[in-house]
Amino acid sequence: MVTPSVPELKPSSRLLLGPGPSMVHPRVLRAMSTPLLGHLDPEFLVIMNEVQAMLRAVFQTENAFTIAISGTGSAGMEAALVNVVEPGDTVVVGVNGVFGTRLADIVGRCGGNLVKLEAPWGQVFPPERIEEALKKEGKVKAVAVVHAETSTGAQQPLDGLGKLCHDRGALLVVDAVTSLGGLPVEVDRQEIDVCYSGTQKCLSCPPGLAPLTLSPRALEVVKARKHKVQSWYLDLSMIADYWAEGKRAYHHTAPISMVYALRESLRIVLEEGLAARFARHRRHSAALMAGLGELGCTPNAAEGHRLPSLNCVKTPPGVEEAPIRKALLTGADIEIGGGLGPLVGKVWRIGLMGESARQEHVLAVLAALEQALAGAGRSVKPGEALAAAAATYAA
Amino acid sequence: MVTPSVPELKPSSRLLLGPGPSMVHPRVLRAMSTPLLGHLDPEFLVIMNEVQAMLRAVFQTENAFTIAISGTGSAGMEAALVNVVEPGDTVVVGVNGVFGTRLADIVGRCGGNLVKLEAPWGQVFPPERIEEALKKEGKVKAVAVVHAETSTGAQQPLDGLGKLCHDRGALLVVDAVTSLGGLPVEVDRQEIDVCYSGTQKCLSCPPGLAPLTLSPRALEVVKARKHKVQSWYLDLSMIADYWAEGKRAYHHTAPISMVYALRESLRIVLEEGLAARFARHRRHSAALMAGLGELGCTPNAAEGHRLPSLNCVKTPPGVEEAPIRKALLTGADIEIGGGLGPLVGKVWRIGLMGESARQEHVLAVLAALEQALAGAGRSVKPGEALAAAAATYAA
Repeated sequence: MVTPSVPELKPSSRLLLGPGPSMVHPRVLRAMSTPLLGHLDPEFLVIMNEVQAMLRAVFQTENAFTIAISGTGSAGMEAALVNVVEPGDTVVVGVNGVFGTRLADIVGRCGGNLVKLEAPWGQVFPPERIEEALKKEGKVKAVAVVHAETSTGAQQPLDGLGKLCHDRGALLVVDAVTSLGGLPVEVDRQEIDVCYSGTQKCLSCPPGLAPLTLSPRALEVVKARKHKVQSWYLDLSMIADYWAEGKRAYHHTAPISMVYALRESLRIVLEEGLAARFARHRRHSAALMAGLGELGCTPNAAEGHRLPSLNCVKTPPGVEEAPIRKALLTGADIEIGGGLGPLVGKVWRIGLMGESARQEHVLAVLAALEQALAGAGRSVKPGEALAAAAATYAA
Repeated sequence: MVTPSVPELKPSSRLLLGPGPSMVHPRVLRAMSTPLLGHLDPEFLVIMNEVQAMLRAVFQTENAFTIAISGTGSAGMEAALVNVVEPGDTVVVGVNGVFGTRLADIVGRCGGNLVKLEAPWGQVFPPERIEEALKKEGKVKAVAVVHAETSTGAQQPLDGLGKLCHDRGALLVVDAVTSLGGLPVEVDRQEIDVCYSGTQKCLSCPPGLAPLTLSPRALEVVKARKHKVQSWYLDLSMIADYWAEGKRAYHHTAPISMVYALRESLRIVLEEGLAARFARHRRHSAALMAGLGELGCTPNAAEGHRLPSLNCVKTPPGVEEAPIRKALLTGADIEIGGGLGPLVGKVWRIGLMGESARQEHVLAVLAALEQALAGAGRSVKPGEALAAAAATYAA
């Protein structure tokens, strides 16, 4: 065997405006590189308490069970479902994009009885459709929806869903991967029972942890399970004993450096304040969308249901989108996302999440897109997109 | 809700000589704090190739399927089993400590027919016992053993096990969490089919990734499954499409910063060279054990089967162990581990893994233990433990 020769790590310096990861604040990188404590060190246990307290603030909940799962957002999704769903349980899933599709897939792997509600990619589910499904199905264990569909840019309304579910004995499971920290996720007020997210989106932390919170009602369901959870790694009854103050029973080694990073990113979120942070996301999204409109792009998500954190737009008619994205990456060091599934080749997904949601980034991507479109032979008036963004900022 | 007030991160500076995490080289911390690329960036895909090539070198394998799972070592264990075991499959598991117990638990969650071989904690399984079980059970899907039992300090011999399994149509699954990078793990020569590890032990990288390699034979078994893998997050058939050069299909967002860290830690491992690294682990372990002997400690693991990476010793007779460990942590900033399960209160587990395996650390922990034992009223001759270590280094 030949020993591979691998050079020093020297990646390009990218502006991350794709569907995630988002830009990371230097303070978070610095905290992450702090020499490690052991995962059972009394000082680390204090750090875990602090992270839990800050996660509760960001989730807007008093839930005691509020932790970070040792995996990326998808591990959070899996933890949410495998702990709640037992074989034969009926689960209603809203499928209007990649992440709803994934929820449905996991329900199947749990042996659940999947009731799939479908909507075109970019549309959302009115509460009436969910109510109708609940009425029709009778005994439903849980309803699962995606608050912020990263694949389509659509924002699912949550108000009232919790009550609908609880009136019929079902739990409400919400995917907040692309919303937590960027737009309101009000776990207690909205009566959400299980809510998970990822660190690499609006929290502006590197990927590797999945914030997760369970209501007391959800916790009761987990405790009353008849079957062992199919995942040992994500078995919340055991993980709870590690995170529970006073117990701290060893389950698995926590990803210490990632916890340091999450702690610092949450400090930054709370220093800014949730209301100011949400307003900032809305402001920059509006400016970006105005500029994109000048470039011939149109929103993919339904009017009134557009995510500020993930701006998904149909590409200008007649433009081949992949070469434009490639020109942005190689020419301007800017990453934006393309489409997934039925949207391949049809949309751009421009993330303005956390540290990425800044005026200079909005202007940078609009200027680079304008130049790349001109370079591809499209007639664009120089500066019009920037002017539209500036006008929106001034308004 | 009150916004929690969380201060700047200022952990104590610890010498990590417990069962993991181990000390992390400053180069690894620096690489980890590099600003992020996107997980589908062409430059990140090159980095993944480099990590795979270096993991193959450390696993001593040509296996194409050699990756890092996005979770800690326990996620590697779960990935190893859930992809191989289907309901009704017979799996022989060697249980002689915490991690064998965990393997057995997961086989049950997969619906497998568990055949548990048991040995006292600190003993290992001679090949004859495994052969006997294979003969008795008839059709066996897999045999799973723990190479380095972190809970007992015992090292399971691996030579010949692969052939035994293959002669009877079974796969060999090996837990190398506390051995990879610290003592020989020869996946190809030893005919191991599924081998996983963790980053925070002998690789001296922060916890958060689980190196994993599958032989072509194991990959065939995974591809021929009748049932979907019960875990979406750890479904190797999908993860393979992300890691496969030329495909790189999106599955989940890779923990980019952790991949940077692992890349740098693997560079350091290969710069030192495996043979030199293994010799270093043996040398420092021998010196530590000599010193511990002077303090009245005796090895927990069977003679000839002691791990150099994890030194598990029975505490001196009549000494209450927990206050001594606490004195080391609070008085000398040194972390060592206590016992788990039946060994609670009876042993210390002193890790000399990767960057932790250095002469100054051996001397530091011996001196601190000597002082703590004296402080607890035990009669110890000052310097005898250090002298024994020095004599071993000189030999």
